[in-house]
Amino acid sequence: MSGEGLGAVPAVDPEEACQTAIDAGLVVHRAHPLNAETSISLLIGGVVMPNARFYVRNHFQIPNLEGASWRLEVGGLVERYHALSLAQLRAMPTQTAMVTLECAGNGRAQLDPPVPGEPWGLGAVSTAEWTGVSLAEVLDRARLKPSAREVVFQGADSGMVEGRAGVTSFERSLEVNQLRDTGALLAFAMNGEALPIQHGYPLRLIVPGWYAVASVKWLTRIQVISEPFSGYYQLDKYQYERDRDGQAEREPVTLQRVRSLIVEPQADQVLDPGETTIRGLPWSGAAPIARVEVSINGDRWQQATLVGERQRGRWQWWQLAARLHTAGSVTVRAKATDLAGRTQPDHPPWNAQGYGNNAVQETRINVRSR
Amino acid sequence: MSGEGLGAVPAVDPEEACQTAIDAGLVVHRAHPLNAETSISLLIGGVVMPNARFYVRNHFQIPNLEGASWRLEVGGLVERYHALSLAQLRAMPTQTAMVTLECAGNGRAQLDPPVPGEPWGLGAVSTAEWTGVSLAEVLDRARLKPSAREVVFQGADSGMVEGRAGVTSFERSLEVNQLRDTGALLAFAMNGEALPIQHGYPLRLIVPGWYAVASVKWLTRIQVISEPFSGYYQLDKYQYERDRDGQAEREPVTLQRVRSLIVEPQADQVLDPGETTIRGLPWSGAAPIARVEVSINGDRWQQATLVGERQRGRWQWWQLAARLHTAGSVTVRAKATDLAGRTQPDHPPWNAQGYGNNAVQETRINVRSR
Repeated sequence: MSGEGLGAVPAVDPEEACQTAIDAGLVVHRAHPLNAETSISLLIGGVVMPNARFYVRNHFQIPNLEGASWRLEVGGLVERYHALSLAQLRAMPTQTAMVTLECAGNGRAQLDPPVPGEPWGLGAVSTAEWTGVSLAEVLDRARLKPSAREVVFQGADSGMVEGRAGVTSFERSLEVNQLRDTGALLAFAMNGEALPIQHGYPLRLIVPGWYAVASVKWLTRIQVISEPFSGYYQLDKYQYERDRDGQAEREPVTLQRVRSLIVEPQADQVLDPGETTIRGLPWSGAAPIARVEVSINGDRWQQATLVGERQRGRWQWWQLAARLHTAGSVTVRAKATDLAGRTQPDHPPWNAQGYGNNAVQETRINVRSR
Repeated sequence: MSGEGLGAVPAVDPEEACQTAIDAGLVVHRAHPLNAETSISLLIGGVVMPNARFYVRNHFQIPNLEGASWRLEVGGLVERYHALSLAQLRAMPTQTAMVTLECAGNGRAQLDPPVPGEPWGLGAVSTAEWTGVSLAEVLDRARLKPSAREVVFQGADSGMVEGRAGVTSFERSLEVNQLRDTGALLAFAMNGEALPIQHGYPLRLIVPGWYAVASVKWLTRIQVISEPFSGYYQLDKYQYERDRDGQAEREPVTLQRVRSLIVEPQADQVLDPGETTIRGLPWSGAAPIARVEVSINGDRWQQATLVGERQRGRWQWWQLAARLHTAGSVTVRAKATDLAGRTQPDHPPWNAQGYGNNAVQETRINVRSR
């Protein structure tokens, strides 16, 4: 492994990237830049979403790094400036973590009145096994100066933004005192493969438990600063905004709110009468899942069985054996609660930018007559 | 989901299956039937091997199930005969497990004198996240009769075998009293996707910790019997066979022997002098890994750091930061020991059919002069 450059970088053809996404069963909302949600119903068990079907959320066109001499720069308020090649990063001790990424706008399409932004259904969420270097270790090697307060992560993607002059880079920050708790990774691999270009090749910050806006793709620069960061994607976007008694309230988007999807049966599916297993995926950024409750046709909440490992920021499965004997339309609702005591609201929590909709999902199915 | 048939079954074109394997970076040993090993060095971190790169070991041509009305039959010494459709299996409560499958012949190419059989290097091993129904639960529903002693698993694959008249099916058995301990699954999904045809679609038995011959593909029939099973792949093949003092010894192949691969650096890789991370994958069918020790240039054994979850029958990573200052050829050896106290032999344990070679791996690399 030589220390130079990236070697063969996957070329970026936006039309081809879009077609590949469609072929894999993704629901494409926008081709330029590519934004596509996963079909959750295609996930047959398991925790890991295959790379080809992982949802894609891009703010700008995928940057073209072909021929670029990419380095991860670590600068600002550090004792030792670094510029690490991919080979140098890969030669460091690594960690692997299963992490669920969810776009803060997941479920935006359900908001009433509607809000601008990508009209995500419920598929702007996926889980992968990420491998990379601990962010804390890279910062330890750089040695933060005492005045360090925030760390800014800059992606190689940039472009024009409405109402702003010049080119805006995709940049996000974390506070220094948030960093250790997050277990953040500088990931170069996704499900055992080099990070695909649409997911941030060569390097993506992965911040477990946070809405995915924090997990900056195509990471090129880590800058340590002494003041709160005021970038566009930090202060203008990704804010819960609403009026309360005529006062504008703003609160930054941080941890993923607790939520559960219903995966089987699918909406409008027709089932034979009898026993079936209802199942779905719950997760929460703040704490592991405590329980999932299911209500059929508005009846009492029944507790589902949780399957697999319980971890903060990583979905798992729940399942419930149900007897559906009566022919006709049946509604299924599922509600998750995490170990921090947070639960899902009955109705979508409206806000002007349409973030954090974690309302209880309701699926309607049909039972055949005997 | 209807209870009928399999729906669209992937067609089996042997030439296409072979080309797909080559395209994915598999090392094809034989096209008819397809036998191909994975390139371990392509696994960049993580535990899960992507489906396209999972090694393929077939005894016969992949069966053509197109248009077949597949059912899983559960019969023999049971109170309730079952014939379950894929939809019925999928409607049952499921389990997911990360399981490492290894061909018993992995490493056969290193045996001296050589033995017949697929000349596997070290890539007849991979790990996936399998989802399916608990075998124990399916047998519980069928209710074994008191005389039940073994359970025979029959795949849909069959063909001619040297020295035997007529058609031989691929069949293997487990003893009833082995079944609960194994945590065996009837798996219909692999890494979140329907089982690919070359890995046993629609259903594969997965027996954690055992050499993969036990994990019967294209499973069509489970037959409970009262006598030890004497099938070809049970008694003739998959036996450790050797002469000891003129006496022929035979012992069946069961659990995976403890072993570690060295993944990075790769053989003959040229490195700059300085610090690098050596890493690899250990696993054992009998118990979780206790430790991995590494020796550089024949020096003392140094203990590597184990990364990720320790579980029986599932590989994890080890890594060791090493300083390679002296230019020239360097040898790296890695030796795993499991919590049952089993460790790897220095030299391949020879046997006539070439199974269970878990000798310590040695990799030779080169360090550049400054």
